[in-house]
Amino acid sequence: MSHVLYGVSVGPGDPELMTLKACRIIRECGTVAFPGKAAETEKAGGSLTRPGEPSESADPIFSDTMSAGTKHDTESGRENRPLPYTNPHAADQLVCMKKGDFGTALAIAASAVPEIREKKLLALDFPMTKDPDRLRQAHIKAARRLEEVLDHGEDVVFLTLGDVTIYSTFSYVQRIVESDGYQVRLISGVTSFCAAAARLGRPLVLGNEALHICPADKVLQPEEQVRQKCDVYVLMKAGRNLKALKEALERNGMDGQMIENCGMPDEKVSDDLSQIPDKAGYFSIVIAGGGEKNDAPV
Amino acid sequence: MSHVLYGVSVGPGDPELMTLKACRIIRECGTVAFPGKAAETEKAGGSLTRPGEPSESADPIFSDTMSAGTKHDTESGRENRPLPYTNPHAADQLVCMKKGDFGTALAIAASAVPEIREKKLLALDFPMTKDPDRLRQAHIKAARRLEEVLDHGEDVVFLTLGDVTIYSTFSYVQRIVESDGYQVRLISGVTSFCAAAARLGRPLVLGNEALHICPADKVLQPEEQVRQKCDVYVLMKAGRNLKALKEALERNGMDGQMIENCGMPDEKVSDDLSQIPDKAGYFSIVIAGGGEKNDAPV
Repeated sequence: MSHVLYGVSVGPGDPELMTLKACRIIRECGTVAFPGKAAETEKAGGSLTRPGEPSESADPIFSDTMSAGTKHDTESGRENRPLPYTNPHAADQLVCMKKGDFGTALAIAASAVPEIREKKLLALDFPMTKDPDRLRQAHIKAARRLEEVLDHGEDVVFLTLGDVTIYSTFSYVQRIVESDGYQVRLISGVTSFCAAAARLGRPLVLGNEALHICPADKVLQPEEQVRQKCDVYVLMKAGRNLKALKEALERNGMDGQMIENCGMPDEKVSDDLSQIPDKAGYFSIVIAGGGEKNDAPV
Repeated sequence: MSHVLYGVSVGPGDPELMTLKACRIIRECGTVAFPGKAAETEKAGGSLTRPGEPSESADPIFSDTMSAGTKHDTESGRENRPLPYTNPHAADQLVCMKKGDFGTALAIAASAVPEIREKKLLALDFPMTKDPDRLRQAHIKAARRLEEVLDHGEDVVFLTLGDVTIYSTFSYVQRIVESDGYQVRLISGVTSFCAAAARLGRPLVLGNEALHICPADKVLQPEEQVRQKCDVYVLMKAGRNLKALKEALERNGMDGQMIENCGMPDEKVSDDLSQIPDKAGYFSIVIAGGGEKNDAPV
């Protein structure tokens, strides 16, 4: 019997936005892989670590305070209640990694599925680089380690933020694992841009509008133009070049809203262009345009 | 204390793709509204019906066989297992409405949250018309009925297919209810296009690609042009005009895949342009373009 690599979407940040299916697949798998620093794994002395094993890492996967998804922005007047953990006692003892660490996906999943602490955990290192050779090597290395688990006769889950089909590192690993003849299945999740729109209480698209989703830098290239004012733009990873982006939107007569770290404890909302700062973090999303006024057929 | 209208996304069809949060909110609310035929409600003799009450409707909301989301396409070699119902015995007794009925959202939710049968159910009629006046009247009528429940001192859930921010009728109702001074919250879900990509086992977007989502008819208008071959198009509601759509994609040198009724029992997959038929149902999605070959940074 051939074993399966599951690309499991954990959604945008709030553990309650995980799907029933993601939770079940994680519960059923013996090994859970996640994007995280290789140091943790290697310092623990093997390719597979269990929480609780000795680790010299300065960034433990699990520590004493739960910080992801336990509460929402109180100033916004939105929900501020504890999440209905499957096992609140266990969840109290969990924590996400430091902000900016890619262990975020693991922290989200651990909040919704505390049993994850009983699993074999596999940290896979994906360097933050634009060097295609280094990236390619990291993808191959990750694929080989996942294949090792499959060869061992186990299904394995790979956790991924947002939805697994939207700008996910997993897609590169999937390609290699599939071309090596293994079976891969994708488990859908809530995208960060849908969560951002819900957080703003606004539709993304209505009626005959088009929705354009792209890395923010793309709309700053001279050959790209905002096409129609009535269309909607979701600009991902917008934190890097916000000043230029705001100017581009203004030139096109478009307003924009921004959410940084949507659904995370340090979430920040900017309700219009004037509120958007010049710099923000990696997980910043700008939504611009839209707002069709008529009752067009849907 | 002011009560809340929740716009709750039930995802694309598979009840297991509902989020933990959607399930909780439904469980906690006394009244569940859904797009469905007014006849059912009125025939039952009041504005709020309970399943089990006598109804003369030819399309009962609940009947004897469960048909939504219980199995997946077996020929595809994908999953074909019963879903882990919260209460399998109750779920066995539920059924979705006839195909094409908008009670689909209710059927999906009922599969994941069998307790929905104990709730007050509120069918809201949205005619399938392009007449803006009739639509506007339907939206106002729906809003008033929801406000009636809120005034009665209850929270109310409105179920919506896919994600509530993507081409959802709820957005029009939300606008009215909010402008009348009531509180509305949106609960995110899995979009149909993410589920379609997952079903095809492919990423939607990678690296620097842009994702364009629009009603299929839009790309057939002369002023619209496919911009860049490396970008990805998701064409919603593609069933109506498939022949012209296939020709447009061919002219632009793009291949396309289609899924009809993704995640539903009558799901159909076309893996390339040549397999796509000339006609298909309302819930058909074409994905075209994409497939970046290099390991670009993500």
